[in-house]
Amino acid sequence: MKYDSGQLLFACDLSGTFVFAIEGAMAGVIANLDIFGVLVLSFATALAGGLIRDVLIGASPPQSIRDWRYSATAFLGGAVVIFLYQFIQRIPLTVVLAFDAAGLSLFAIAGTTKALTFEINPFIAALMGTITGVGGGTIRDLLLARIPGVLRADIYATAALAGSAVMIVCRRLGLSPAVSGVLGALVCFTLRMVSVWRHWNLPKVSGL
Amino acid sequence: MKYDSGQLLFACDLSGTFVFAIEGAMAGVIANLDIFGVLVLSFATALAGGLIRDVLIGASPPQSIRDWRYSATAFLGGAVVIFLYQFIQRIPLTVVLAFDAAGLSLFAIAGTTKALTFEINPFIAALMGTITGVGGGTIRDLLLARIPGVLRADIYATAALAGSAVMIVCRRLGLSPAVSGVLGALVCFTLRMVSVWRHWNLPKVSGL
Amino acid sequence: MKYDSGQLLFACDLSGTFVFAIEGAMAGVIANLDIFGVLVLSFATALAGGLIRDVLIGASPPQSIRDWRYSATAFLGGAVVIFLYQFIQRIPLTVVLAFDAAGLSLFAIAGTTKALTFEINPFIAALMGTITGVGGGTIRDLLLARIPGVLRADIYATAALAGSAVMIVCRRLGLSPAVSGVLGALVCFTLRMVSVWRHWNLPKVSGL
Repeated sequence: MKYDSGQLLFACDLSGTFVFAIEGAMAGVIANLDIFGVLVLSFATALAGGLIRDVLIGASPPQSIRDWRYSATAFLGGAVVIFLYQFIQRIPLTVVLAFDAAGLSLFAIAGTTKALTFEINPFIAALMGTITGVGGGTIRDLLLARIPGVLRADIYATAALAGSAVMIVCRRLGLSPAVSGVLGALVCFTLRMVSVWRHWNLPKVSGL
Repeated sequence: MKYDSGQLLFACDLSGTFVFAIEGAMAGVIANLDIFGVLVLSFATALAGGLIRDVLIGASPPQSIRDWRYSATAFLGGAVVIFLYQFIQRIPLTVVLAFDAAGLSLFAIAGTTKALTFEINPFIAALMGTITGVGGGTIRDLLLARIPGVLRADIYATAALAGSAVMIVCRRLGLSPAVSGVLGALVCFTLRMVSVWRHWNLPKVSGL
Repeated sequence: MKYDSGQLLFACDLSGTFVFAIEGAMAGVIANLDIFGVLVLSFATALAGGLIRDVLIGASPPQSIRDWRYSATAFLGGAVVIFLYQFIQRIPLTVVLAFDAAGLSLFAIAGTTKALTFEINPFIAALMGTITGVGGGTIRDLLLARIPGVLRADIYATAALAGSAVMIVCRRLGLSPAVSGVLGALVCFTLRMVSVWRHWNLPKVSGL
């Protein structure tokens, strides 16, 4: 069977979109928003990272505007929360964190890969992967008038950046895009989960 | 006389821009900003919705950057508030709400129409119309470090989405763009005003 | 020696980027963020103004995405703060204000010049210069969930707008781009510093 990198990436992207849509919608329910507000947050959380990346790398119009399956997936995630909220809120925190870390990894790898396709410098491509991963949550926090988690939270964006960098280094070393992507995603996921489990944090400047 | 859809749209767009510029400037005065801050809010409220839409659908550079009449209209709205604040603040709330609903309807229809022109999928085109309508007020609220009204407020974005959807359905049913636009705008305007009058709200997830 | 306007602009742009990166990182340290958060703020403050301008004028992908030296400069500014915080916090406020005013002037002139190169209307080009100058600080304030200084603070964006306008008028009067740029920057810098020294403020609408 022939391996199709594009389809794999697309599957990653939609899976990440779905996970982040559910998280955004949950934040909306917790903030006591009405149904429309919940859907706005599920769209913003699921799609903003990719939208910002596409605008920055010059992929115009952005993929999630051209392809209705992105909006449909974001909508589906919001609808799942609206109709199954009682079930979803009982999911244990560890599972939620694992899904979130998976979404972050998928988005970081998909974003970096896409930036490389657009012939963006590898250093900046890793930043674009990171923005893809953390952009949605940042917009969600801004809409809720909170300081974005990415500025405060332990090792989150750092994990996305590390995963993106590992992927780029692996490709430079001659590994295939698929293998490099899987390794990058594993690094991002593992780093994120271990940092939560071990309560790792980045140092503050005052502590240096 | 020959009917010119482009000119009609342009007139709608500038009227909406003027109404939203006045609203933005009023928010600035109420937040006790200086004159420049008031003008920034009038520009942001009047132009941000269209700017975001144009960036998303790939209309580059955005219309309000290419055409100085948009900035001039936004500036005029701000100047009207600065010089005539005493009069404007006496306008009854119902009239303000009606003008706002009219601006929302004009922007929703103009935004949806433009997205369709750029061959955006109809489902997403309706979302683009909604963003055009609510984007300015959302940026205004973000600048004032408030949770955007679109996440909380009764039936507002919902009205824009409904109007956009009605317009698209009408065009699919074979009605002319002009008639479809008028019907969509009427639906948006009526839904918004009736929801204010009747204190309609969307349900919350906890109440489902 | 042949004068090269492009290189001069590039030097201005990188100098402004460095100054703003340091300011952004300092804001991050003061807000008690971890190292990654500090770097995010240095990138956002240094690059957002130019990114927004480039997206708006249709320079796609934006210069700071295409050219790694922008990110590297922003990173350098952040790293300087992280490693030399003890020294930087002892810099007297007047010096900080002077550097900030210099960065504002450089960005306003560079932004206006670039917008003119993209054949943007002069009135809007001056606005683009202003956005280049104040955009980074605005995004920084939004990320920290504060009302942006540009809406409140004395004569800041006004100075950027005045400098941009002076540059455009000088070019219209037939002065060379270089001379016009220097005059515009001087106006912006002087207006900003004098307004700080004299505690000048723009009037509020209630006081008109």
